[in-house]
Amino acid sequence: MVRFGVIGAGRIGKVHAATIAANPKAKLAYVADAFKASAEALAAQTGAEVADAEDVIKSSGVDAILIATPTPSHAALIEAAARAGKAILCEKPVSLSVERINACLDVVEKNRSTLMIGFNRRFDPNFASVEGRLRRGDIGEIEIVTITSRDPAPPPADYVKSSGGLFRDMMIHDFDMARFLMGEEFVVVNALGSSLVDKAIGAEGDVDTAAVQMQTASGRIAVITNSRRATYGYDQRIEVHGAAGMLAARNIHATSVELSNANGVSGDPVQYFFLERYAQAYANEINAFIDAIDSGTRSPKPGGFDGLQAQKLAEAATVSWRTGKPVEID
Amino acid sequence: MVRFGVIGAGRIGKVHAATIAANPKAKLAYVADAFKASAEALAAQTGAEVADAEDVIKSSGVDAILIATPTPSHAALIEAAARAGKAILCEKPVSLSVERINACLDVVEKNRSTLMIGFNRRFDPNFASVEGRLRRGDIGEIEIVTITSRDPAPPPADYVKSSGGLFRDMMIHDFDMARFLMGEEFVVVNALGSSLVDKAIGAEGDVDTAAVQMQTASGRIAVITNSRRATYGYDQRIEVHGAAGMLAARNIHATSVELSNANGVSGDPVQYFFLERYAQAYANEINAFIDAIDSGTRSPKPGGFDGLQAQKLAEAATVSWRTGKPVEID
Amino acid sequence: MVRFGVIGAGRIGKVHAATIAANPKAKLAYVADAFKASAEALAAQTGAEVADAEDVIKSSGVDAILIATPTPSHAALIEAAARAGKAILCEKPVSLSVERINACLDVVEKNRSTLMIGFNRRFDPNFASVEGRLRRGDIGEIEIVTITSRDPAPPPADYVKSSGGLFRDMMIHDFDMARFLMGEEFVVVNALGSSLVDKAIGAEGDVDTAAVQMQTASGRIAVITNSRRATYGYDQRIEVHGAAGMLAARNIHATSVELSNANGVSGDPVQYFFLERYAQAYANEINAFIDAIDSGTRSPKPGGFDGLQAQKLAEAATVSWRTGKPVEID
Amino acid sequence: MVRFGVIGAGRIGKVHAATIAANPKAKLAYVADAFKASAEALAAQTGAEVADAEDVIKSSGVDAILIATPTPSHAALIEAAARAGKAILCEKPVSLSVERINACLDVVEKNRSTLMIGFNRRFDPNFASVEGRLRRGDIGEIEIVTITSRDPAPPPADYVKSSGGLFRDMMIHDFDMARFLMGEEFVVVNALGSSLVDKAIGAEGDVDTAAVQMQTASGRIAVITNSRRATYGYDQRIEVHGAAGMLAARNIHATSVELSNANGVSGDPVQYFFLERYAQAYANEINAFIDAIDSGTRSPKPGGFDGLQAQKLAEAATVSWRTGKPVEID
Repeated sequence: MVRFGVIGAGRIGKVHAATIAANPKAKLAYVADAFKASAEALAAQTGAEVADAEDVIKSSGVDAILIATPTPSHAALIEAAARAGKAILCEKPVSLSVERINACLDVVEKNRSTLMIGFNRRFDPNFASVEGRLRRGDIGEIEIVTITSRDPAPPPADYVKSSGGLFRDMMIHDFDMARFLMGEEFVVVNALGSSLVDKAIGAEGDVDTAAVQMQTASGRIAVITNSRRATYGYDQRIEVHGAAGMLAARNIHATSVELSNANGVSGDPVQYFFLERYAQAYANEINAFIDAIDSGTRSPKPGGFDGLQAQKLAEAATVSWRTGKPVEID
Repeated sequence: MVRFGVIGAGRIGKVHAATIAANPKAKLAYVADAFKASAEALAAQTGAEVADAEDVIKSSGVDAILIATPTPSHAALIEAAARAGKAILCEKPVSLSVERINACLDVVEKNRSTLMIGFNRRFDPNFASVEGRLRRGDIGEIEIVTITSRDPAPPPADYVKSSGGLFRDMMIHDFDMARFLMGEEFVVVNALGSSLVDKAIGAEGDVDTAAVQMQTASGRIAVITNSRRATYGYDQRIEVHGAAGMLAARNIHATSVELSNANGVSGDPVQYFFLERYAQAYANEINAFIDAIDSGTRSPKPGGFDGLQAQKLAEAATVSWRTGKPVEID
Repeated sequence: MVRFGVIGAGRIGKVHAATIAANPKAKLAYVADAFKASAEALAAQTGAEVADAEDVIKSSGVDAILIATPTPSHAALIEAAARAGKAILCEKPVSLSVERINACLDVVEKNRSTLMIGFNRRFDPNFASVEGRLRRGDIGEIEIVTITSRDPAPPPADYVKSSGGLFRDMMIHDFDMARFLMGEEFVVVNALGSSLVDKAIGAEGDVDTAAVQMQTASGRIAVITNSRRATYGYDQRIEVHGAAGMLAARNIHATSVELSNANGVSGDPVQYFFLERYAQAYANEINAFIDAIDSGTRSPKPGGFDGLQAQKLAEAATVSWRTGKPVEID
Repeated sequence: MVRFGVIGAGRIGKVHAATIAANPKAKLAYVADAFKASAEALAAQTGAEVADAEDVIKSSGVDAILIATPTPSHAALIEAAARAGKAILCEKPVSLSVERINACLDVVEKNRSTLMIGFNRRFDPNFASVEGRLRRGDIGEIEIVTITSRDPAPPPADYVKSSGGLFRDMMIHDFDMARFLMGEEFVVVNALGSSLVDKAIGAEGDVDTAAVQMQTASGRIAVITNSRRATYGYDQRIEVHGAAGMLAARNIHATSVELSNANGVSGDPVQYFFLERYAQAYANEINAFIDAIDSGTRSPKPGGFDGLQAQKLAEAATVSWRTGKPVEID
């Protein structure tokens, strides 16, 4: 039985709390949130108790801390939980600063804590199936990984001020996915970006349309394209080309219904809302963490190192886009 | 708030109980089952109390009775619940006998009870979308309804002894779907059947492979094919042809992943297990019932009449197959 | 080298003449047509000579006669060509009368002539692939054959007066396809029909919407649906269900282009015109006949017997529709 | 009537000659080839005469010269034909040297000749449909063009010595397609490449796996991936993302047949051979040239400038790959 303290009762905290509550191997013991009303609402719904984050972390009735607070608080909460001897599942990213991540991971390391980072897409059944088949050798040696990732609609332009920009807040998922699929680190990053969707995003010094190509030491290639807009829904596709074939995960549509008439054949748009598109991924992620803790596994994946590496690629892409030059990763 | 008594704590009773428990407008008050251990296990999981079916039906703490027991008990339980003034959701069929259904519906009628029949497929998001678009006129006047329905694997041959046979236990879902989509009653039924999957089923006097064609008074046509076996999963498709086009609901596959190699392009089999394939349909069905009761609707669909009509078509098909002649429906 | 006389220089005669002209194993020697201008135009285009049908049939410079005239002349032309010792490829049907076909086939038999009937769809690469894989055992023993066949738009109502009606002029292709795929004769035919597309067709005593189900002696089932209208193009699909799986041939679309936008995902309509949809089939058919004659094969398929059997099924379906009763085939 | 002299009777010359011979607005007058036997065979088949290239170019019986010889002879033949006042259709590329192309285009310009370059893929019905719909505004302003292009199998390693390498002999088609679809010139090119398919290709100083990303002055992005190997056939896809949606052209498969069984659903591989995949494109290309000349159009597209620009991008990509740096295009 894994007893959880959830810190952060916002949109994603609620989703995770429901999964924890439904898992017979877990118990949702405490909920904390800076807005007490949010914590109370979630606690009432799930039968948990409300407490301050600090107390939750220190509580002897808690084995694992789930951190679903805003990004700036992640690193400190991880450190506190690590020092308190708790297993930790933290939403991505650990921090927008690679240095801060390094410092935080040092604390985790020293306390021999278990840390998992919430790159939920690794747990999507479609992408997980691709990864499993790559490891099984279904298409032989990997040659090219292609990731297409487009949000249905852009965020408010001022969001990018605090988010760190497209490469850090959006493409970071794709950097993690590229590493997950490729199974080899990237050594060079080339980025192009533009503000084609919303000029106000460009005015804030960010891009809303971007392409990145990366290469590993052995010459394998990854190509990622991002856009802050896709009128047809939340476009989330991967394609991996190997010596013996291609594996691809297609988009998920609202229904399987097709209309054929004089205009042609038409189907539903792609699922629009990320909580719907990745509902199963979020649940699988939490359940995988619970299984890992419950079975005594020390290093559930993706871990702190994965958080660090994705952040390094996001940094490198940002620099590459700004300078117009490739950036090497050490 | 709709307070439920669930009678029958088997496979499907459990699925429904979980939906009731998760719906904020409903409360799972009591669980009853002939095997007390089953009732107790489900009650423990959901916070309900265990009671005898009789007591549940009479309890003043219950507004609605969900009947998920074996078929032979359905009609009597419906009558008891109707007399006790409860709203009723009963798994299909009401009875294998049209006469018994008529008698039961009389009791429901006299007690002005609310009765919904569990034809879950009407609530599948794909099929419901097709029906909604038909009613909206997306393809104009309906001409042909085609339903393909194949189970992944045959039941034990002795199951068909008690089930009433393929037309009554399996195709009945398709008869209801044909009526649901067509929106007009059928006046003639033509059935063909064979035992091609398992000779033992034929030896029991039933078929495992069947085709039915039906016609309405205005000349519209429905075609249904059934098989007890589909190696590629639980094949569940509909196609409706109208004056202005065609609407089709395709199968649902395990993942969206495709492998391309020298053998071609291949995707996952169709979802295999009916509880997985229709998970959303089962939940939507219960929630629709709760909404209907909660809002005071007297006649949620599908109702007793729908149960009766589907059973009449199943009877007619059985007779048509046995006699080799079309059967007219009054 | 097979020297051809083509009788009938209409739409389909021209298509076949072009294939003959392009085949290095064949020579288009003569063209005949009741409208001399048509024959002359086709002859000029292909380098053939114009002659009367009678003379073409008797010419020592001709090895094979291709009959592409209106239906009523088919049987007599086949008989004349058979008596002249020519190989014959005749467009379907031999005759609308089963008796007339029998008489004609007697003459063919007595003269030991080679006769192939132009059921072009057997030569469609998609359907031929399905048939080849069925014979190879890709899905084991066949259980159900389903054929969907819908014309893009209805013919003028008075066409059905001379055509023999939907079952004889349209569904006859599907009867042949059902036999081709099934590999076993049908023993019972059940037909339903309606006039839903054009009331004028109904007024002429025919149907424009129909469903037929047939069964073989071993219990296998075929289901055919026809409509004179499909707004989305020329709908031509087959699906075969066997003990070990399902083989299906999908429709052919104008291009592979898909548009995704807020309305969903949409592709091109199905190919609309039968000469485009079956262009490859028509060519493959002629080339198969040429190969058969060139290599001395006496019985290219489909032969006279196939023409007879399809006509018998069309007759039976017409009777079944009119009487509302199943018709047995001897 | 456009009278043609075809220079080069190899594989592609034969394909084009057949199209010319079948076009009623054109006449195949002369065929020339360094191997006289090849010219004679093609002439015999098509009714043309054989002559030396020089004489064909000067002949007063020729209006248009089709150049289908090896690349090194292209520029000189174009110049000779331009000086002789003929319209010219030349297979790509004009030359592997940008300087040589410039010199050649000067001669074309001075002689006011009509020159079309054989970028056949612009005439593929699928890609042409995408381009037409982009120009019509179906997806609004273009944001990202993605081109996936993979040959079924690698050439012999020593082929790349004379071909100029992957970027010049293979990706040049994609550079032209990117310009065709984008409708705006690219100003920067970033290339990555590896030898993952055949180490011998790497040993020759070339790559067999490559990714290029390019940007226009207005910030639009194109991404191209190439591989010399695709086990599943000749992978030829484009995807264009715009403000109002996405247009995509999918691969073309051998048949529309699908097999469903316990292993899942599988379809045919993608068409393997480029002459099959682009058969319609080759014919449409020649017919478009004939229409242009026949109707007196002076500048059929793609013209010499298009040949030049594609070559510049191929050069830039080669340099970018070698130096590991982006290359700007003037």
